[in-house]
Amino acid sequence: MRYRAIVEYDGTEFCGWQLQPNGPTLQAAIEDALLRLAGQPVRVFASGRTDSGVHALGQVISFNLEREIGLRKLHRALNALTPESITIRSVDIAAADFDPRRMARRRAYVYRIWNDPYPSPFWRRFAWHVARPLDMDAMQRAANDLLGEHDFEALRAASCDSASSIRLVYLSEWKRDGQLLSYHIEASSFLRHMVRTIVGELVEIGLGVRAVDDIPRLLATGDRIQAAATAPPLGLSLTRVDY
Amino acid sequence: MRYRAIVEYDGTEFCGWQLQPNGPTLQAAIEDALLRLAGQPVRVFASGRTDSGVHALGQVISFNLEREIGLRKLHRALNALTPESITIRSVDIAAADFDPRRMARRRAYVYRIWNDPYPSPFWRRFAWHVARPLDMDAMQRAANDLLGEHDFEALRAASCDSASSIRLVYLSEWKRDGQLLSYHIEASSFLRHMVRTIVGELVEIGLGVRAVDDIPRLLATGDRIQAAATAPPLGLSLTRVDY
Repeated sequence: MRYRAIVEYDGTEFCGWQLQPNGPTLQAAIEDALLRLAGQPVRVFASGRTDSGVHALGQVISFNLEREIGLRKLHRALNALTPESITIRSVDIAAADFDPRRMARRRAYVYRIWNDPYPSPFWRRFAWHVARPLDMDAMQRAANDLLGEHDFEALRAASCDSASSIRLVYLSEWKRDGQLLSYHIEASSFLRHMVRTIVGELVEIGLGVRAVDDIPRLLATGDRIQAAATAPPLGLSLTRVDY
Repeated sequence: MRYRAIVEYDGTEFCGWQLQPNGPTLQAAIEDALLRLAGQPVRVFASGRTDSGVHALGQVISFNLEREIGLRKLHRALNALTPESITIRSVDIAAADFDPRRMARRRAYVYRIWNDPYPSPFWRRFAWHVARPLDMDAMQRAANDLLGEHDFEALRAASCDSASSIRLVYLSEWKRDGQLLSYHIEASSFLRHMVRTIVGELVEIGLGVRAVDDIPRLLATGDRIQAAATAPPLGLSLTRVDY
């Protein structure tokens, strides 16, 4: 029986989603819980790998269990067996061929910035502290240039191994709530470090270091070296995956 | 020269505001920073003592420095010398007789509750997790009974040593944002554990364990034993003090 679950996590103390030998990962924490529950190893698949320090409100995962477990019991047990930094929001039966990564049609991320001369004790785990004032108007105008289909070669990590760098961006919007700024982006799928590289670029535009119309120029070059520094992972959360 | 500062803190890892021998306190952290800055011990006074685990967005403090330090420099230095969980929001010159506790006219607190069958990885440090559904309408009707001047004898800690238990409540209001509920209360001043005891009481009303009109009955008894259990400290934040 294949199951599908929606998972929320504070990624601060994890070395990202994917299993790795040198530190705790989200995949390992959930697979450990399923091993204890099922009595045998269970492989977990996710809609995408989040990097070290990145959070999620709506990561979608799937796994198979040989012996069926009632949904209510499975939901409770998974929450009881995973650490406090992980909450399973829901568990459902999935189609036998459900693949959370390949079947995802659209993904939504939010990137938070605490924009104040001094950091916030409350947002320090979930927002990037940018001390100098940011021009929200300039950042939104530049963000609009990302909408639609573009080649994001200049805005992905050097380590990204995706065959194509063409992506379709549906939403690219800044919101402000006092000193807390949030950038909302939705696309068909994302390249490695794409959101963080975009935010790094938009912040340099907001600081006046780069021109408001730098995005079309940068996309046209296809040259990663010309992009701004990647924003730190702690501000990023995967909020939703649509199928 | 007397100074006045507004301080924000994540109280999770502190044993409350007041100096004590057995653990880190906010007063000690700020006095340590001032000692390093001034080269001699400096006593810090606050608008009120927050309990272990309680947070603040707008705690007001005062202290004297023998040798005057420029405000910008003092502000930067205090933020550099205090831990990440403390941010000094502002520093100003105060009147020579400024007393942050006795001169405060009004204090505002917020108490947050995460109301969902499962906890939130993001709010676990700043909100009380209440798993069963709460009746917001009943909680607001009961909260209205706290407005105005009352004898809060039944809603203070046994250890509270305030001479009078009469207090004037200006605001008593619930707000909801998804699963996050927040209770806003403002009063001339508060008794020890008063907000947390009120929230404990309102939550039992919201769960249907107590009647919607339990507050007037309880206040009339003046009997602490009849009140509900005190809500945990992590949901509470001192948000503002008016002078």
